[in-house]
Amino acid sequence: MKKISVAVLGATGTVGQKFITLLDGHPLFDVAELVASPRSAGKAYRDAANWKQPQPIPATIADKTVKSLDQKLESPVLFSGLDASVAGEAETRFAEAGHMVISNSRNHRMDPNVPIIIPEVNPDHFKILDTQPTTGKIVTNSNCSTMFLAMALAPLHRKYGLTKVQVTTLQAVSGGGYPGVPSLDILGNVVPYISGEEEKIEIEAVKILGSCDGKSLTPADFTVSAQCTRVPVIDGHTETVAFGLAANPSIEEVAETLRSFTGIPQEKQLPSAPRQPIIVTDEPDRPQPARDILLENGMATIVGRLRTCPIMGYKMVIMGHNTVRGAAGAAILNAETLHALGYIQA
Amino acid sequence: MKKISVAVLGATGTVGQKFITLLDGHPLFDVAELVASPRSAGKAYRDAANWKQPQPIPATIADKTVKSLDQKLESPVLFSGLDASVAGEAETRFAEAGHMVISNSRNHRMDPNVPIIIPEVNPDHFKILDTQPTTGKIVTNSNCSTMFLAMALAPLHRKYGLTKVQVTTLQAVSGGGYPGVPSLDILGNVVPYISGEEEKIEIEAVKILGSCDGKSLTPADFTVSAQCTRVPVIDGHTETVAFGLAANPSIEEVAETLRSFTGIPQEKQLPSAPRQPIIVTDEPDRPQPARDILLENGMATIVGRLRTCPIMGYKMVIMGHNTVRGAAGAAILNAETLHALGYIQA
Amino acid sequence: MKKISVAVLGATGTVGQKFITLLDGHPLFDVAELVASPRSAGKAYRDAANWKQPQPIPATIADKTVKSLDQKLESPVLFSGLDASVAGEAETRFAEAGHMVISNSRNHRMDPNVPIIIPEVNPDHFKILDTQPTTGKIVTNSNCSTMFLAMALAPLHRKYGLTKVQVTTLQAVSGGGYPGVPSLDILGNVVPYISGEEEKIEIEAVKILGSCDGKSLTPADFTVSAQCTRVPVIDGHTETVAFGLAANPSIEEVAETLRSFTGIPQEKQLPSAPRQPIIVTDEPDRPQPARDILLENGMATIVGRLRTCPIMGYKMVIMGHNTVRGAAGAAILNAETLHALGYIQA
Amino acid sequence: MKKISVAVLGATGTVGQKFITLLDGHPLFDVAELVASPRSAGKAYRDAANWKQPQPIPATIADKTVKSLDQKLESPVLFSGLDASVAGEAETRFAEAGHMVISNSRNHRMDPNVPIIIPEVNPDHFKILDTQPTTGKIVTNSNCSTMFLAMALAPLHRKYGLTKVQVTTLQAVSGGGYPGVPSLDILGNVVPYISGEEEKIEIEAVKILGSCDGKSLTPADFTVSAQCTRVPVIDGHTETVAFGLAANPSIEEVAETLRSFTGIPQEKQLPSAPRQPIIVTDEPDRPQPARDILLENGMATIVGRLRTCPIMGYKMVIMGHNTVRGAAGAAILNAETLHALGYIQA
Repeated sequence: MKKISVAVLGATGTVGQKFITLLDGHPLFDVAELVASPRSAGKAYRDAANWKQPQPIPATIADKTVKSLDQKLESPVLFSGLDASVAGEAETRFAEAGHMVISNSRNHRMDPNVPIIIPEVNPDHFKILDTQPTTGKIVTNSNCSTMFLAMALAPLHRKYGLTKVQVTTLQAVSGGGYPGVPSLDILGNVVPYISGEEEKIEIEAVKILGSCDGKSLTPADFTVSAQCTRVPVIDGHTETVAFGLAANPSIEEVAETLRSFTGIPQEKQLPSAPRQPIIVTDEPDRPQPARDILLENGMATIVGRLRTCPIMGYKMVIMGHNTVRGAAGAAILNAETLHALGYIQA
Repeated sequence: MKKISVAVLGATGTVGQKFITLLDGHPLFDVAELVASPRSAGKAYRDAANWKQPQPIPATIADKTVKSLDQKLESPVLFSGLDASVAGEAETRFAEAGHMVISNSRNHRMDPNVPIIIPEVNPDHFKILDTQPTTGKIVTNSNCSTMFLAMALAPLHRKYGLTKVQVTTLQAVSGGGYPGVPSLDILGNVVPYISGEEEKIEIEAVKILGSCDGKSLTPADFTVSAQCTRVPVIDGHTETVAFGLAANPSIEEVAETLRSFTGIPQEKQLPSAPRQPIIVTDEPDRPQPARDILLENGMATIVGRLRTCPIMGYKMVIMGHNTVRGAAGAAILNAETLHALGYIQA
Repeated sequence: MKKISVAVLGATGTVGQKFITLLDGHPLFDVAELVASPRSAGKAYRDAANWKQPQPIPATIADKTVKSLDQKLESPVLFSGLDASVAGEAETRFAEAGHMVISNSRNHRMDPNVPIIIPEVNPDHFKILDTQPTTGKIVTNSNCSTMFLAMALAPLHRKYGLTKVQVTTLQAVSGGGYPGVPSLDILGNVVPYISGEEEKIEIEAVKILGSCDGKSLTPADFTVSAQCTRVPVIDGHTETVAFGLAANPSIEEVAETLRSFTGIPQEKQLPSAPRQPIIVTDEPDRPQPARDILLENGMATIVGRLRTCPIMGYKMVIMGHNTVRGAAGAAILNAETLHALGYIQA
Repeated sequence: MKKISVAVLGATGTVGQKFITLLDGHPLFDVAELVASPRSAGKAYRDAANWKQPQPIPATIADKTVKSLDQKLESPVLFSGLDASVAGEAETRFAEAGHMVISNSRNHRMDPNVPIIIPEVNPDHFKILDTQPTTGKIVTNSNCSTMFLAMALAPLHRKYGLTKVQVTTLQAVSGGGYPGVPSLDILGNVVPYISGEEEKIEIEAVKILGSCDGKSLTPADFTVSAQCTRVPVIDGHTETVAFGLAANPSIEEVAETLRSFTGIPQEKQLPSAPRQPIIVTDEPDRPQPARDILLENGMATIVGRLRTCPIMGYKMVIMGHNTVRGAAGAAILNAETLHALGYIQA
């Protein structure tokens, strides 16, 4: 099968590097173009990128010349890990030029006709793409913290009806990019604030779990309240969640509902799909970032400590790999789903 | 003024070492006896203790011979940092022998006639001591996480009436004692579970904020729901709190109520009293353990990020020094208050 | 091909868990027996082990019943990750009973007729096994810090003649086992001492790089001086090394000598062999544990910062995965080599 | 006594903040002027500085208006914590304008007539100031790692004659300033490289321990070889040292020589002087940054693990507070010494 050429926008940054790592040897997509700021353009990738991944730069990538963000691109599909300072305008421009832009950036997430997709959860939201006025389209994935929350809540909302969600996040430093969080701020410390993060979680979660009639997206009608903290962890966001349901299932029923949840990626056995998108653990002290982020190659949402809450009804702890399922891996799975559904052709 | 002789029970352990450090040069109390398990008894303190404090062992203490927990003691006042495995029985025995036992251990906290005291909050609960059947008495302070929560909630409950409290803790490893948490479990990791901790917070907070008619203690009638995690921080527990109030004060009013809160320790200018028991910060990313635990010599509760919560009404982040105000310092301030109120005499 | 049954001694401990993880799906060896202290014996492995690996317990292992260390075993080959408190006597007993004991424990390393083997370096030392009086034999690998040092020095000693080696180690906490190093001792700290470690490095390195005439082992005649520290890193020992050579090669020649070094494991393409046992990096700030321990699946020794030393002649930084190449992986490669050389038969 | 007005150059940076913290309430010096880049100039200090110290900004400082580096200053004495990118030219200009510039910056350290002073070690080097052509003078202190090394070696060189010194440093992140080392680079990691650091140590140590005949400075004639690493520690540089001596003292004699070392700061009881500049510990696992940096208010050099080295003769571990004795505190003690010797008058 002929692979589909893709470009990585923001290829030298943290998310861009993760795209390149995860797309190395991908059965559907071939990284044909690396795009970065004019400062990096014209250099070999190995010289332009301050490579920070544990795996070496793929051999097919290392010597490729980096293109400039203002160049015309040839690849039909673009993965965007652009910084928010430039993503908004650039992504619009590429959509106008006919590209399918699969973005991890936050800029267009709240646009009324841009969906935030988790393919196990709301693939029906792809329909809104038809209302985008451009030849190409823009698809986004959620903020890294929202990803695990929306994933874990989706089967519960569908089956029992969510009424309210209280979440506290303990987020890893890789979520802040590079150089990102200074070591003097976080070594042996907790920072109880991440700019803009609480708002993103509160808004994105209800957009994802809302409905799409093909013309517009209607947010779900439960309330989310978030408190976000940064902790000295490299990868893996942990979240404590308390939530209310309209129905009154037992803890065992809730666990089983989470465990048995699957969607299009599992049915179609997409290359990056976790076999089990939500793993429920019974061990009392799990999930833990240092122990569990590699489950399902970093594509799982792990849920533990399911128990009753005397105020909200239910409590749980969720955790996932913020730079894989929470960022680059989410975008790649979105692309695989778009391909499976016929939005992208080879 | 003649100082009051005190003994430190569990003198070689983490809490015991903190008692010794904080009592060094104390104007009221003189550490006359060091008490530990039979294994340490008979040794010089410097040989018996695996000293872990940043300050050296006080010169007056280093060469003192450690006494055994089963010996008779002479000091009228005992500070107990005993391990829960032995504290229950030993503290009862010492109370029967006429000592005032000021304990940081959890064993007697939920006894119906043993008060959990925060002297700024519920000094009226000392009255319940009269109902204890022993010649001596047992007074406890709360669990370290409960301390900062109950302190920050006290002025709000008094003025506006609490209805419910949702709290997630990010607790430091020093709370687990020594050797405590293995480094393999916590370096670069989060452990979303601390055995028994959530129950303690949920029960102790309402006991402290309850009422005492001199004959019995009645818990406050709001509900607390806690989720506890351990993070790679040495000292300083951070807590995200969402809470509901019967009244509807503005954020500014809530802040002012917290800031202006004082109690007996401040009125009587007790030696270990923070001038301001609750410090409210307006900086967006505070409080932080690495930056704020030394405020008021570790005796303050620091509150930040006061804001509205779309579910509970109000949200805030609180933080305090878990081994000072959250443990040994709390017990010492209890003793100073008992002295100020005439329960302890020189 | 029929696999060879092996037992893992100390199967529930840190090294034992690593043996089980690395032997999962091994083409030559089949973990048939799990052996631990009498306390664990009789339990299912999943209940006996406090599993700390990032991968789950292999399905073929989880329900196996743990045997007791004092039982008779059936597997011809035993991998020993026993604690030093019991390894000495137990390993001797199993060798007497006819087993090939491949040990990661330190107890027999300095026995005159027990070799410390790095198969790329001193496979000729296997000859000393014939002088062991028992039916079975005992083979050891080196201490984790010695491994990377001896590996990096081996080609230099062979070609240029070492005269002296000054090494400072920065060792990961996983080297201390579980529970091992308390978090209160190492979070944000350096401990400049590891009991017995400096002696091991100084003695083992010259034993490994010495000669074997089939009757006895003669240590190499250069001197090693070691200083060992513990740092807050989970996996990966870093070592700064300064060394003198009898010859006077250029830095480029030294680098090339290291890069081109191979041995039996590479020639015979053994399953666990790194393709390149010594990787030399030119990047100014490498090797780093967080970035480089997974090279060659944790079986490589990474050398960087090769440069001249105004005192000793040469300086370099070396790093490797202490629980893989530095422990369980080393023992497994020893076993594969023994099999390739005919000491072990299916 | 009237205090001497001083300015802090680079007042908003990490070193500048430390100057301000350490000079708060100083008996000799009064911080009259705060100087920073034009970007900060004109603002209140509390707004210009991203304050990172555990103590709050001193009340006398918080509202002071920051001056621009290109303004004329009134204070006779200037403490410079300027960034190396501007320190060279600015300090020269201020010396020409008649100020006594006491600098922590590296720019002028290797100028032939600028001394690097450790007042306990080489106060005779102040004589070289007379050869500086400017009305004002420039005095520097050493690099943070050199400080503890030169201090510990000084009494040994004086008494026994050093021949060579091999040192490996494990340096804290605060040495890299703010934002400095990204958390993604150092959490759970070791970086075996700090740009320019090894050269500084190798050159500065022999300059400090060299001689001054009033006309020029002659470096000491032993060789230093350094390897520098960064570790995840906030404050406190640890160094493993192996060294040779011309004489052959016992370990006990070496320890006693270190312990009994004092100089002008101790004789004159200068305000910032440690009572004992070198503390020798016998505990096997000390010094440790987390336990020992506050000894002598951060102004001590702590030496441990004194023992013989089979190659160099002697080995030891040294440690000190890199931002106090290793930076701002060193400069302040230099200023106090200059005052005591009459170079600065009120």
